[in-house]
Amino acid sequence: MNTNILAASLPDVAMEIDQRGIALPSVGIRGFRLPMQMKNESGAIQPVVVEAEVGVSITAEQRGAHMSRLVETLYEWASAPHSPQETPELLSQLVDRLQSDQANLRLKFLYFLSQPAPVTGVPGLLEIEVDWQCRYEKGRFESSTRFLFPGMTLCPCSKAISEYGAHNQRAHVRLWLQPDDRLPQLPEAYLPMVNESCSMGIYPVLKRQDEKYVTERAYENPRFVEDVARELTLRLRESNRLQWFRVECESIESIHNHNAFAAYEERTGK
Amino acid sequence: MNTNILAASLPDVAMEIDQRGIALPSVGIRGFRLPMQMKNESGAIQPVVVEAEVGVSITAEQRGAHMSRLVETLYEWASAPHSPQETPELLSQLVDRLQSDQANLRLKFLYFLSQPAPVTGVPGLLEIEVDWQCRYEKGRFESSTRFLFPGMTLCPCSKAISEYGAHNQRAHVRLWLQPDDRLPQLPEAYLPMVNESCSMGIYPVLKRQDEKYVTERAYENPRFVEDVARELTLRLRESNRLQWFRVECESIESIHNHNAFAAYEERTGK
Amino acid sequence: MNTNILAASLPDVAMEIDQRGIALPSVGIRGFRLPMQMKNESGAIQPVVVEAEVGVSITAEQRGAHMSRLVETLYEWASAPHSPQETPELLSQLVDRLQSDQANLRLKFLYFLSQPAPVTGVPGLLEIEVDWQCRYEKGRFESSTRFLFPGMTLCPCSKAISEYGAHNQRAHVRLWLQPDDRLPQLPEAYLPMVNESCSMGIYPVLKRQDEKYVTERAYENPRFVEDVARELTLRLRESNRLQWFRVECESIESIHNHNAFAAYEERTGK
Amino acid sequence: MNTNILAASLPDVAMEIDQRGIALPSVGIRGFRLPMQMKNESGAIQPVVVEAEVGVSITAEQRGAHMSRLVETLYEWASAPHSPQETPELLSQLVDRLQSDQANLRLKFLYFLSQPAPVTGVPGLLEIEVDWQCRYEKGRFESSTRFLFPGMTLCPCSKAISEYGAHNQRAHVRLWLQPDDRLPQLPEAYLPMVNESCSMGIYPVLKRQDEKYVTERAYENPRFVEDVARELTLRLRESNRLQWFRVECESIESIHNHNAFAAYEERTGK
Repeated sequence: MNTNILAASLPDVAMEIDQRGIALPSVGIRGFRLPMQMKNESGAIQPVVVEAEVGVSITAEQRGAHMSRLVETLYEWASAPHSPQETPELLSQLVDRLQSDQANLRLKFLYFLSQPAPVTGVPGLLEIEVDWQCRYEKGRFESSTRFLFPGMTLCPCSKAISEYGAHNQRAHVRLWLQPDDRLPQLPEAYLPMVNESCSMGIYPVLKRQDEKYVTERAYENPRFVEDVARELTLRLRESNRLQWFRVECESIESIHNHNAFAAYEERTGK
Repeated sequence: MNTNILAASLPDVAMEIDQRGIALPSVGIRGFRLPMQMKNESGAIQPVVVEAEVGVSITAEQRGAHMSRLVETLYEWASAPHSPQETPELLSQLVDRLQSDQANLRLKFLYFLSQPAPVTGVPGLLEIEVDWQCRYEKGRFESSTRFLFPGMTLCPCSKAISEYGAHNQRAHVRLWLQPDDRLPQLPEAYLPMVNESCSMGIYPVLKRQDEKYVTERAYENPRFVEDVARELTLRLRESNRLQWFRVECESIESIHNHNAFAAYEERTGK
Repeated sequence: MNTNILAASLPDVAMEIDQRGIALPSVGIRGFRLPMQMKNESGAIQPVVVEAEVGVSITAEQRGAHMSRLVETLYEWASAPHSPQETPELLSQLVDRLQSDQANLRLKFLYFLSQPAPVTGVPGLLEIEVDWQCRYEKGRFESSTRFLFPGMTLCPCSKAISEYGAHNQRAHVRLWLQPDDRLPQLPEAYLPMVNESCSMGIYPVLKRQDEKYVTERAYENPRFVEDVARELTLRLRESNRLQWFRVECESIESIHNHNAFAAYEERTGK
Repeated sequence: MNTNILAASLPDVAMEIDQRGIALPSVGIRGFRLPMQMKNESGAIQPVVVEAEVGVSITAEQRGAHMSRLVETLYEWASAPHSPQETPELLSQLVDRLQSDQANLRLKFLYFLSQPAPVTGVPGLLEIEVDWQCRYEKGRFESSTRFLFPGMTLCPCSKAISEYGAHNQRAHVRLWLQPDDRLPQLPEAYLPMVNESCSMGIYPVLKRQDEKYVTERAYENPRFVEDVARELTLRLRESNRLQWFRVECESIESIHNHNAFAAYEERTGK
């Protein structure tokens, strides 16, 4: 309470009237890390470590934002588990607390999915990079989600021209999604699509029988980065829940010191 | 010659007819590093080490791109110095060589500018991160340039509420530019604007007299990240050469373990 | 069971006899990420996301290591919470499971500590980077722990030569520790020492009264990186539990685009 | 000249007498980037962009180092091309200029080597990461050089157990060297050893005939990370110029989302 009295006596420079006449669409904090608990569609809770960026708009008259309130709001939110569907409520709180017209939020975290070995079934956890970018303005919420899945590509050209063998490599499959409901996503539903679109999926544990299986299936199933982008596109179209998506496959070429990539994007018009 | 005969006898899988009916807007290579020589407006040549991404579009019928041609084209280009104004010619060559409708190029490199100490004039070289994103389609060239300049911010709130001192820190000032001529840019013209927009510029060498000057000028000139974004906006508007720009100031807060940022963008409508 | 029969029929290349006569001190996996639960000295459990490197030695006769067993052992370990003191048991399991003489383990993770605002007491969580390097050979366990704490430095020279103000900045305080018991450490005990050794501590949330306090205390307490290294050394000597330590303070200079650092190390001889 | 008079009137805090009784072995700057010109054994000059760390020791009585002199010395050095063999002279200048007993220097840069395609001979430049760590004390100079070469590994186990195909991937081959003459090194002499020790070398450009060659040679030449470490060890022993070396092969496993590594080190006793 004493500290509030003190606060009242301190000048509030952020509230000064700015004369430059320039409203700023986003002012806030970045690289802020905190623990959170993600609740998925089946209600399971996974602890994650989030890197957050959060900002609000300020009017032309307002010199600055009260950034400590952004941090306080994030901490309060992180005190309980939340599903992705609840995210608009967080941005609504930010807008209220900062008395702003608009809020934006970016959350990046690793999320682990089960990926058991394909023959022996030995359990494994595959880490998926998740990146949510959300925006809330006048009661309207929008977001896009980016996932980074690992996969494997085996080069069709190398296989076709060689007597034996074919170069293959780990690839990064990036997926940007805007579903019809505009909400951020967790990656569960997309891992099977990525596994099918690559020459083979990637596994944390492989025993010898699994390694034989993975090697042979990849050789039977050569895929350029171009093929992966197209195969994934076909599967995403079928998912029927997306108003927009972008796919990108980037392979860590085993024969070069640079990567190969192919990108595609589509708006369904809904 | 023998190798050309051999090549002719090898299947060209990239040229196979694809049945999936999906044209890809960008297929190529990324993370490719090579030495180049940048020629600035006054004709001076600076050797740089570039990280390149280059891609072309492929039609729905074409299974893949001939990626080795992208590398060969880059090497040929890098065999002589080039000014930014010549970049459309590189993309034109890519389109021709790959028989594509469209090419895109991204070049990231460090570029050094003179930034002598403010009082003693001791010479120093300040590194500026440059990032060009270029696109060429049907004879039409477009690009945007991103710069990362370092600067200093001194917090107006901290100064106003404290008996003495004020927290200050290094900041990253990012500038995205699309000039009227749509060409990529080198950073010479923008360093003075950044130095003026921050509480103080950043210097590679400061002797004691310089350090006194820098400390006092920064204290006399407190700037929030919001102030830097607005000051830079005013200066960019005056430059009168830009059809679009975006500015962002991100300060490595000395009192927090996270950063503060403010962003603004503007299209002049030309 | 069928898969075990199959496994038995597959050649085990890693078990081939190697003819090159070179025993390898460490063979294993790196960049393996998994969730773990850290139990601190008071029994509290914190979920963390770990990046692990784990390896074993192989004899000159053995062609390779069975790396999938390293992953399986890590997963089993991560199925329950563990205190740092239990880590030797994990390495003992690795040595047994891989039939090796020696195992080494590196775990890197973010660990959050409470750091409330200094005046208002608003709660905050400060992330500390933790890096354990452990080694187990013939029943003997050794480890060193590295922490990265954030702190603040305010330049004594800048203060002394300037009429007003002083440049200050975020700093990274790195601490490498080998305690008498050779066990890996969590950072709780060291945060107060770091806060005292810097010009000021770093806080996730600061209200205006806090910001005034932090600004003024830092100005009253100027510290070079050299001072921080020495102050921390004095405090670590008093802790009386360490057989070796190394300290390093690296400040993200607000007046330069490079950092300043000072390092010191000491073996107490125990 | 006026500025020198001013300088004389400003207090020199770094020269204050420190009471804590702790001599610091290394105080300096880090993350300092500047252009340099490297002259190799045949006299060819390659422009590079260097990231430098440079420090000196200070006595227990001295409060701080004059860090601006470190920057000035680096700039003067960089004004002309230098061979690695001249590096002791740079450290000698640092010791003189800072009136210190000891200086240390770390330089990291990319260095490009010719690596033409193996069949067609199409030219290519392979980037090698170079990292020099040097130390000079009482007229005695020591250094170690670290290189990062890219290479390719094809898994012998995967090949042996599979009907067809074998997983393969890009690998990072790291080499730490201390030659008999204690001088830092450029990578020319080591690239052939790395290419021979891996399943195959890595090439910036490969035409179809080259890709066939690379694919088939790699399949004929399966190598675990353990094999690469041992093969490289055999070749380094023959080089007969090294008093100490360490090798490490880390493969970006195509079947996993983590890497495999093998390490070895040897002191010849010279």
